[in-house]
Amino acid sequence: MGILRRAGRRGQPRDAALALPPVNRYPFRVIHAPDDPIVALATAPAPSALAVIRLSGHGSLALLSPLVRGGPALESLPGHTVHLRTVHDADEDIDQVMVAVYRAPRSYTGEDGAEVICHGSMPVIQRLLALFSRAGFRPAGPGEFTQRAFLNGRMDLTRAEAVNEIVRARTDRARGLALQRLSGAIEGQIRAARENLVDVRAALEVSIDYPDEEDGAAAGGPQAGERLLAVVGILEALARTYHRGRIFQDGVAVAIAGATNSGKSSLFNLLLRQERAIVSEIHGTTRDYLEGQVSIEGIPVRLFDTAGIRPSSDPLEIEGMRRAEEVIRAADVVVYMVDSQAGIRPSDEAFIAGIARPVIRAWNKVDLTGRAAPPDCIAVSAVTGAGIEDLESAIAAAILEGTSGEAGQPLIDSARQRDLIDRALESLARFRQAQGEGMPPDILAVDLAEALEALGEITGEVTSAEILERMFSTFCVGK
Amino acid sequence: MGILRRAGRRGQPRDAALALPPVNRYPFRVIHAPDDPIVALATAPAPSALAVIRLSGHGSLALLSPLVRGGPALESLPGHTVHLRTVHDADEDIDQVMVAVYRAPRSYTGEDGAEVICHGSMPVIQRLLALFSRAGFRPAGPGEFTQRAFLNGRMDLTRAEAVNEIVRARTDRARGLALQRLSGAIEGQIRAARENLVDVRAALEVSIDYPDEEDGAAAGGPQAGERLLAVVGILEALARTYHRGRIFQDGVAVAIAGATNSGKSSLFNLLLRQERAIVSEIHGTTRDYLEGQVSIEGIPVRLFDTAGIRPSSDPLEIEGMRRAEEVIRAADVVVYMVDSQAGIRPSDEAFIAGIARPVIRAWNKVDLTGRAAPPDCIAVSAVTGAGIEDLESAIAAAILEGTSGEAGQPLIDSARQRDLIDRALESLARFRQAQGEGMPPDILAVDLAEALEALGEITGEVTSAEILERMFSTFCVGK
Repeated sequence: MGILRRAGRRGQPRDAALALPPVNRYPFRVIHAPDDPIVALATAPAPSALAVIRLSGHGSLALLSPLVRGGPALESLPGHTVHLRTVHDADEDIDQVMVAVYRAPRSYTGEDGAEVICHGSMPVIQRLLALFSRAGFRPAGPGEFTQRAFLNGRMDLTRAEAVNEIVRARTDRARGLALQRLSGAIEGQIRAARENLVDVRAALEVSIDYPDEEDGAAAGGPQAGERLLAVVGILEALARTYHRGRIFQDGVAVAIAGATNSGKSSLFNLLLRQERAIVSEIHGTTRDYLEGQVSIEGIPVRLFDTAGIRPSSDPLEIEGMRRAEEVIRAADVVVYMVDSQAGIRPSDEAFIAGIARPVIRAWNKVDLTGRAAPPDCIAVSAVTGAGIEDLESAIAAAILEGTSGEAGQPLIDSARQRDLIDRALESLARFRQAQGEGMPPDILAVDLAEALEALGEITGEVTSAEILERMFSTFCVGK
Repeated sequence: MGILRRAGRRGQPRDAALALPPVNRYPFRVIHAPDDPIVALATAPAPSALAVIRLSGHGSLALLSPLVRGGPALESLPGHTVHLRTVHDADEDIDQVMVAVYRAPRSYTGEDGAEVICHGSMPVIQRLLALFSRAGFRPAGPGEFTQRAFLNGRMDLTRAEAVNEIVRARTDRARGLALQRLSGAIEGQIRAARENLVDVRAALEVSIDYPDEEDGAAAGGPQAGERLLAVVGILEALARTYHRGRIFQDGVAVAIAGATNSGKSSLFNLLLRQERAIVSEIHGTTRDYLEGQVSIEGIPVRLFDTAGIRPSSDPLEIEGMRRAEEVIRAADVVVYMVDSQAGIRPSDEAFIAGIARPVIRAWNKVDLTGRAAPPDCIAVSAVTGAGIEDLESAIAAAILEGTSGEAGQPLIDSARQRDLIDRALESLARFRQAQGEGMPPDILAVDLAEALEALGEITGEVTSAEILERMFSTFCVGK
């Protein structure tokens, strides 16, 4: 009695197992979508020419209207229009602003809302936020605007996650990958996989309803095997991109090691200088140790310069070397600088042997020596810049070693999506095994339903409030 | 031959002096107003949900159109509308953005233009700025959008300067004062003064044309004296507000001094904590010495904690006291902390006597001693916060001592405006002296014309390209 046992294991009567669970078991439209008016500063909290305060929610325009003067009531205006207004707090004028009016459902959130473009001084921003808050706008939680966009059917969850990823992108490559996801590249592949599985399910339902039909044995229809293989192929390829996706989004740490005077700091400065814009604009502060942000072939890299390694009894120098070892241990890839004037010494070999990470050997100062690099070294000059591109390629290759994702292919960068794809793949593996064992179609239907549900969770057609909360909590406020 | 001498001194033939120089001698519409397409990031260059890139200039919409897709050509759209678009660089999509379209002359600059509201990541901002620049948008200079607004007759110069002042405002009071100016409070007073002078000039012209009329002696018409006095009153009152205006806009330095253990650091922290938002949001970094930004009754105050004063031979301590003395010398007001447990000692009196700045004596630790403060001290507890408001009032009063500008009165914060008012006042003083000496009306007309010209320069009806360049160079980019 395989059928009953299987159903029993899942704590469901057989009838429930037969009646395939609807794909939209927790369709997001059933979740209570909050629509109270919310407010957040959407631009960086620093003095600048302009700042943008974002407002959204049911009745938000009527709430904002009494706070501004200079034209018709905002709730009477068409969406996608901009209006010059003066914001006032009772008798006191606060600022002259532009108000962009959005009307439900044609807005980012799907609700009525506005963007107030004000002068970018902190007192203006503080007064406006305080005023809007007193008027009934609740300070928005992280990602709450995008969460509403999702809940109101304006975008699926893969696109919603991509919104956060594009905001957090640190290199142009990461931006491009996030935009690809925001444009629906992941959603498209998941939907294609689901459509194939829905076809298999339809054929399976025929087998359940008419168990005596000829092709009942090949449960799921004659093309079920091929369709499943195609789906498994798509999903496995996507899942494999996760590691590479994370690397482009989160970045990695690269340490420069080597003997004193091997040219570590020159290389550090050279790599930083090439990407000075990123360094100076994103990070304004320095740390106690030398660290910089660079983009190496589109990978955001935290680059560390470490103290030179040499025998010493100076306590300060010993402490410096201890810290260098810590940085090297924590790095994803280590660049070991060799002074080509001295060549590779036994102490270098001993140090490299102790590094548990991939090591790239840079044969430095070729501008001085002209000595050919040994086969496992890359000839560079940290002074003239010769060979730096080869070195960067080698660093990027070492970072991406063992990861998947060709140019143009969308990369997954969400652990949530990767886990759900894995869950779908496990269900499909069970389905195929059960199919191979000649299990009846109503058993197969359970595994298929699970795979469909996992895929539905990726795009958000099936989801729970708890998952949404966890997901959007990583967003920045104002998105 | 006073007439000829006077005219000769100015190197003008008598006829030219008689033909009153037009008020709009350099009317700004004659200056070549550049209208080439410009671009600038208008929000802070830091990762955030949104960023705004501002574009303006002749043909700017047609230039932007080929870079975006997703709807009709931007140059075909009405102004004050917002549109969802994808910005692309040839085949590569850069970001999904909202484009606010503005049409000449109903725009901030008076030109066609747009605000591109993009995702606030540095790679997005960098790519968009690079793309727009390659497409033919020139990076805007400081204040260039506002300069164009002025050149195209969208605002006068007092309002244009106020734009920069509201962006740079560091306290809510400074914001309010800048907004008052942005709303035309200074412009209104200057225009009222000019209208009065224009009336006097009209009467004067009658005297010149009909020199034999009865009231020719009271040159400038029968009410000329009263009108002039009113104008002088308005201008003198405005000029007197300059010092106070600068204080609210630029802020001042206040040092906390006193013996060791008198409670300086507690007061420092207490004053900082009250205004934590300003401290943490505007300034993210600390210095080698203790310094914080606070608002004291709306005045932006750089507050310094100094090392305690006591006899010492420790070189480190001596160095600390030397720096304390430097900070005290540079401060506008000094708060001297007295430990009420110890009372005022001769060493305190000696130190205070050496301070060349206004000193406020704080009688600290009243929570412990309950000892009544001497008449020249303010009783406070830096621990419980008792008396802190009195202390703040005393600090504000000491800062504003000798300055003018009642609540509600617009304050001037521009040296340019103050200098021009002074120039107008000098011309009017000469006018009145010449009038008293019974000089003929054509002589009086020269001084009056000079006063009118100075007032015209304040609002920008009379100005030069050089003055504009100097003025807008202090603006931030994007404004």
